[in-house]
Amino acid sequence: MLDENWFTEIVPGAESAFSLKIKAKLHAEQSEFQYLEIYETEGFGNLMVIDGCTMVSTRDNFFYHEMMSHTALYTHPDPKRVWIIGGGDCGTLREVLKHPGVEQAVQIDIDERVTRLAEIYFPELCESNNDPRADLKFIDGIKWVKDAAPNSVDIIIVDSTDPVGPAEGLFSEAFYRDCFNALSPNGLVVQQSESALFHLKLMGEMRDAMSNAGLSHLQTFFFPQCIYPSGWWSGTIASKAALNGFREADSANKPFETTLYNVDIHKASLAQPEFFKKAMAK
Amino acid sequence: MLDENWFTEIVPGAESAFSLKIKAKLHAEQSEFQYLEIYETEGFGNLMVIDGCTMVSTRDNFFYHEMMSHTALYTHPDPKRVWIIGGGDCGTLREVLKHPGVEQAVQIDIDERVTRLAEIYFPELCESNNDPRADLKFIDGIKWVKDAAPNSVDIIIVDSTDPVGPAEGLFSEAFYRDCFNALSPNGLVVQQSESALFHLKLMGEMRDAMSNAGLSHLQTFFFPQCIYPSGWWSGTIASKAALNGFREADSANKPFETTLYNVDIHKASLAQPEFFKKAMAK
Repeated sequence: MLDENWFTEIVPGAESAFSLKIKAKLHAEQSEFQYLEIYETEGFGNLMVIDGCTMVSTRDNFFYHEMMSHTALYTHPDPKRVWIIGGGDCGTLREVLKHPGVEQAVQIDIDERVTRLAEIYFPELCESNNDPRADLKFIDGIKWVKDAAPNSVDIIIVDSTDPVGPAEGLFSEAFYRDCFNALSPNGLVVQQSESALFHLKLMGEMRDAMSNAGLSHLQTFFFPQCIYPSGWWSGTIASKAALNGFREADSANKPFETTLYNVDIHKASLAQPEFFKKAMAK
Repeated sequence: MLDENWFTEIVPGAESAFSLKIKAKLHAEQSEFQYLEIYETEGFGNLMVIDGCTMVSTRDNFFYHEMMSHTALYTHPDPKRVWIIGGGDCGTLREVLKHPGVEQAVQIDIDERVTRLAEIYFPELCESNNDPRADLKFIDGIKWVKDAAPNSVDIIIVDSTDPVGPAEGLFSEAFYRDCFNALSPNGLVVQQSESALFHLKLMGEMRDAMSNAGLSHLQTFFFPQCIYPSGWWSGTIASKAALNGFREADSANKPFETTLYNVDIHKASLAQPEFFKKAMAK
């Protein structure tokens, strides 16, 4: 049995749990929106927990941040304007800004405290926060998108917590409809879409909501993510325009370093498991 | 904190842990070789634990069994004779026998009790045990391979526990040398090769041992496996002959059902993460 030196997240329904051994609790606070905790772990570096769910660890965040950004950016033909809804740890922002073609990257997280804590405990994720192309806003992302003028943005990355609490509205058809209106003609949304082993029903509902909102060209991609439920995570691209693969040559010649992502990993992430294909065809 | 109704496996080094909530402990025994436990879980069906490590669950075993078998069998040009070293739960055997070209599949697990328990608690994995092509032996797999005549087998699937305890010898150069001698000219070994996030050093040593034994054409493949450390597992194919991809057309027309595996998943599993490529190039 694990003693009090472990942080544990239980996955309801699956009744599984993932735990990390803790060296020290570095911080805890109730922000205006969420309960935030920072731990120093034995094996994963620092760990941020929001409302009891693991969000980011030093050791394995590269999986999520690289896949959520580069997969979307190399799918769009020429992304110049990118919004990140959520993403307060700034790791996705850092990856987006590795693309020289990006002219503007706006991160809109409702909770400024997440970013302030990331600056202290995950400074490597925040190293591009002062890039002149970066714009950090601490306001409601749902309202931001709703109020946007048409053709304001090329890619909207929804880098949110799970669809409970403040992030619930980010999985709704109304939100995707607002995204559709804000996006340029080739525009696309990429949304973190949970685990195909644990959340298949949610994934189907999310894809339906995207389609119904006019973002009818869908591509779910898969990647490992040790600290998230089941250790296997996904993102879903929902595009206004037809998707014809991705910019493979550009990906193969990416002018930046990554830890996981490369052109083969991108292609591989698009493979659909047999049970997933069947479930989504229903 | 998790109470006594959870089974937990701690990963030393990573200092992470994975847990499943238990409905009932169905069985426990010390066999001649290992400590065997069977649990009924809340969310994963039945669970077999060997020496404290999760081995098989009803819910997610298809990842491992399908990837370890079909990936190897569709890589070999024409596999007729297959040995499974370990694999006492019989799930790999079942997948191997889905290939009509296989004429003989010998499962060699040192511990007969694993199979006897699988027959009771995982009957679906044992449904091909009476196939006339199946031969279940309960003897030492290392000795079996050592004593084999040259050109006895086309594929050796090493479906073992972790490289501690009875399975330690299955990761050694001496064992791979014996495999080399037993294999036909196009023969190959496929070995479960742990997690690239947690066991990179071991993977490198294993690949070196394979190469040094003459099985110098290597292909590591990756797949999710929720109940194994990090949730992300791998297998490594080590072949006598050069590897030129796999039989894609045959895989695309496979005459059997799977839950995960298909031709796209096979191709995807071969993609090498950036950090893995760099680590193995050293």
